[in-house]
Amino acid sequence: MASTRGQAREAILAAASALFTAHGIRAVSADRILAEAGVSKVTFYRHFPSKDELVVAYLEAELERVQGLGRSATGEPRAIAAIFENEMCRPGFRGCPFINAAAEYPDPDHPVRAVVARFRGWMIDAIAAWARDRGAQAPDEVARQVMMLRDGALVDGYVTGNPRRAADELAAGIEALVAA
Amino acid sequence: MASTRGQAREAILAAASALFTAHGIRAVSADRILAEAGVSKVTFYRHFPSKDELVVAYLEAELERVQGLGRSATGEPRAIAAIFENEMCRPGFRGCPFINAAAEYPDPDHPVRAVVARFRGWMIDAIAAWARDRGAQAPDEVARQVMMLRDGALVDGYVTGNPRRAADELAAGIEALVAA
Repeated sequence: MASTRGQAREAILAAASALFTAHGIRAVSADRILAEAGVSKVTFYRHFPSKDELVVAYLEAELERVQGLGRSATGEPRAIAAIFENEMCRPGFRGCPFINAAAEYPDPDHPVRAVVARFRGWMIDAIAAWARDRGAQAPDEVARQVMMLRDGALVDGYVTGNPRRAADELAAGIEALVAA
Repeated sequence: MASTRGQAREAILAAASALFTAHGIRAVSADRILAEAGVSKVTFYRHFPSKDELVVAYLEAELERVQGLGRSATGEPRAIAAIFENEMCRPGFRGCPFINAAAEYPDPDHPVRAVVARFRGWMIDAIAAWARDRGAQAPDEVARQVMMLRDGALVDGYVTGNPRRAADELAAGIEALVAA
């Protein structure tokens, strides 16, 4: 049982994150999340008045996590590859949470899609900065191509169940693009 | 109202395809599909004993459609680009139906995931054959890289709402990979 407000919120987010990752977003009900988190319905809805708000908070937490990896990896030559490797080779990996959320939220004006867009904008900017450091001729163009490869590698690693191979192929593809 | 067995099946599949594309798979109930198709519950379940069987049939129809494009484009230098362009620049485009279905079906042994795997195996083989014709040094490796770019381009075209730009970047990326 979560005892304080902050703990309850964290418990709900942790349960939601695990369940959304494992099953998808629409497949998981609010009832299932609150049971898993060990909080009451009243507590749940005090923190998240709607399931959509919880989905937004879940993706924002994931965005902050990846941004944290980005900050700690700054300046390292393999910084971007390290972020991608972390994304792909975690236990319970099920592809990109932002791609998966977009698949379930068709309305481009939905708040969930706004977090997806923030993630992608941040990631493309981070790749461009990295490509610039590496001396790429057209860092913005390289960044969009690397992002495509990244998305494709996460899809491939998920559907084949072989993220290790996809991560290696991604690293090789990135080297080829930056060298071009 | 659909009058014959074959017509009823086609009407259900057409309604399911439109609704799954527009809203996602779990977001659409069997009741909504049968109402849209103008068939009774009895007729619906005679053709598709479960919604999962309908989802499999919907993806198989999409696979056949894309394979048909592949056959008619055989031998043309831009065959593969033409398939990708058709996938990305159709009205109501909402990304790759197979990627989106995989996001909603986490169990790798589910029949839905089997159709996703068939699509991806066929597509990679088709790209490898095309790369071989184009004189690529390592056609199988190129095919896996092109598939990653293709997946990334479909994700990008969908989430940005700008599939035209993504299709152009994909074509440029493919040329670079085959030339390498």
